[in-house]
Amino acid sequence: MLGMREEKMPELRQDIITGNWVVIAKERAMRPSDFSVQSVCATEDLQNCPFCPGNEPMTPLELYAVRPKGSPPNSSDWEVRVIPNKYPAFIESEMFSSSKYNLPKRDSRGLHEVILHSPEHCLDIATLPREKVELVLRVYRIRYYSAGLDPEVKYVHIIVNHGMESGASLEHSHSQLFGMPFVPPLVQQELAGSSWHMKSRGNCIFCDLISLEMEEKERIVLQSDSFLAIAPFASRFPFEVWILPRIHRESFADATDEELEELSSVLKEVLRRYSEGFKNPPYNYFIHSAPTDGSDNSYYHWHIELFPRLTRLGAFELGTQMMINTTTPEVAASYLRGQVLQ
Amino acid sequence: MLGMREEKMPELRQDIITGNWVVIAKERAMRPSDFSVQSVCATEDLQNCPFCPGNEPMTPLELYAVRPKGSPPNSSDWEVRVIPNKYPAFIESEMFSSSKYNLPKRDSRGLHEVILHSPEHCLDIATLPREKVELVLRVYRIRYYSAGLDPEVKYVHIIVNHGMESGASLEHSHSQLFGMPFVPPLVQQELAGSSWHMKSRGNCIFCDLISLEMEEKERIVLQSDSFLAIAPFASRFPFEVWILPRIHRESFADATDEELEELSSVLKEVLRRYSEGFKNPPYNYFIHSAPTDGSDNSYYHWHIELFPRLTRLGAFELGTQMMINTTTPEVAASYLRGQVLQ
Repeated sequence: MLGMREEKMPELRQDIITGNWVVIAKERAMRPSDFSVQSVCATEDLQNCPFCPGNEPMTPLELYAVRPKGSPPNSSDWEVRVIPNKYPAFIESEMFSSSKYNLPKRDSRGLHEVILHSPEHCLDIATLPREKVELVLRVYRIRYYSAGLDPEVKYVHIIVNHGMESGASLEHSHSQLFGMPFVPPLVQQELAGSSWHMKSRGNCIFCDLISLEMEEKERIVLQSDSFLAIAPFASRFPFEVWILPRIHRESFADATDEELEELSSVLKEVLRRYSEGFKNPPYNYFIHSAPTDGSDNSYYHWHIELFPRLTRLGAFELGTQMMINTTTPEVAASYLRGQVLQ
Repeated sequence: MLGMREEKMPELRQDIITGNWVVIAKERAMRPSDFSVQSVCATEDLQNCPFCPGNEPMTPLELYAVRPKGSPPNSSDWEVRVIPNKYPAFIESEMFSSSKYNLPKRDSRGLHEVILHSPEHCLDIATLPREKVELVLRVYRIRYYSAGLDPEVKYVHIIVNHGMESGASLEHSHSQLFGMPFVPPLVQQELAGSSWHMKSRGNCIFCDLISLEMEEKERIVLQSDSFLAIAPFASRFPFEVWILPRIHRESFADATDEELEELSSVLKEVLRRYSEGFKNPPYNYFIHSAPTDGSDNSYYHWHIELFPRLTRLGAFELGTQMMINTTTPEVAASYLRGQVLQ
């Protein structure tokens, strides 16, 4: 056990994959009940929700959907629906190449899709039936694979923002897929760290981390045959969780049907525990996976990173690109382990 | 003028100093009036505010204060007061060196101070009289210099979080000073970029940027004899502003009395325009300055970065370490130029 004195002391922890340092510093005596950011779903105004069934004309034409046989595209009897983002961060078409400014810029080429989880406005991944979550994950894999075929797309980033505080601008539960024209900085850091580890040790750094976490046990949130959910040692956020496939696979596209079935349970269960532990908090998750740029990334290991949005980033974090986390991962894992169904 | 089509298109812009790319993508037709995150000061509960005069016993003993001659330390008639942070991210004393875990960690050595701007609970840098802002800046310089003398402190980071949405945990207007045991990642990127530019071009990259911005004019927010305030080309946040000293100086500690006097006007004016334009929004600012680790940083150029907190970071930004900004810096500068006193 940590002594009282030690428990209050800030410490620096390094993520072994990226090399990034995090300050773990207890602000006051933060208990889980001290966090009270709630994300309440307001069901009143559904006729104006562009993602609710019946409002398909309010969205761009669909790219893909899970529907009954014979149901025409853009009709309202879909189960999962994929549409282009109306206000894209990355766009498919060729555009202007203005040389108006003397500073470096380029076209934001790529894809930006929205994946509607279900016709139900308020059911998120935590509250949808497991089979429906599995369906969403299968749609992820289909769209991930399809986006990766686009020669402009070098990296596919799939995310969820749940609740306004998490960055969501529309309430109806949905994911976003970004087909990016380059590998983003944080993934480049992970690639560099895992490539270095493979070259110097001959192992996948994520596989080594899984072994170490299975041995230390203290940061395990839950485990299944094929997945391990841990509170990472250098967690950037309070109650951050990583879900790692226990079998080495570089890309989310390589996940098997059986793995997606199991993942649907694990993902739903972690989010259910957030919901249970913090009364439906806003949360984010994203998938980190190998680039789709044709390079050899066999040393990489895909995974999901999740965190409830219980605290706010300030000028320390935004001015240093370094996080202060007020909850130790060991406390977080212990708390999340306790949030089992009664 | 940009055409309507161009105006709606996302584009990628690169920060010439760090090399980081930002997506400039208009989400809907964002007008300044669409942002409505307000930071209202609640004056009711002042007897419980540990930063209000009379409540000095609620804080750790003061490190420094501007007080009338003869007024004893920790009494209530101070003008600016500096105290240690009660829940520090970095601590002065030697502490444990537990080898409990097999993953890399170290003591979080350094300093963490709180600078109370004035006895007035609700007056922030935007609303304090200019002379009082100048006093705060002088205290910054004193504490910056003093922190830099500590051999453990390699970098001094001074910040303001104003309003709960900005990460502030206490309302009474204050700054924080972090004496860090290493140079933080974002500053390392700026140092690398400016060192490279100096070695390859023989100039300070910030000085070159100032010349370019003075020429292009479009991103200038305001200027004085010694300072230039611009909306940076690759702004990470809507309405982000940088305040740059026009004379090359690597460290904030080198700012002269005359410069601090002028800076108090410029800083106050930029924040007043945020307040005017967005009805007292939450905001952050921080000072980027040369490391205090004894290295030669003559190629660096200190400055202040400011932004109102009008949008929230989501899983795109937190999973990629790359920002999407929904307002072009040209629009932001034009809007902020218009917020002059009637």
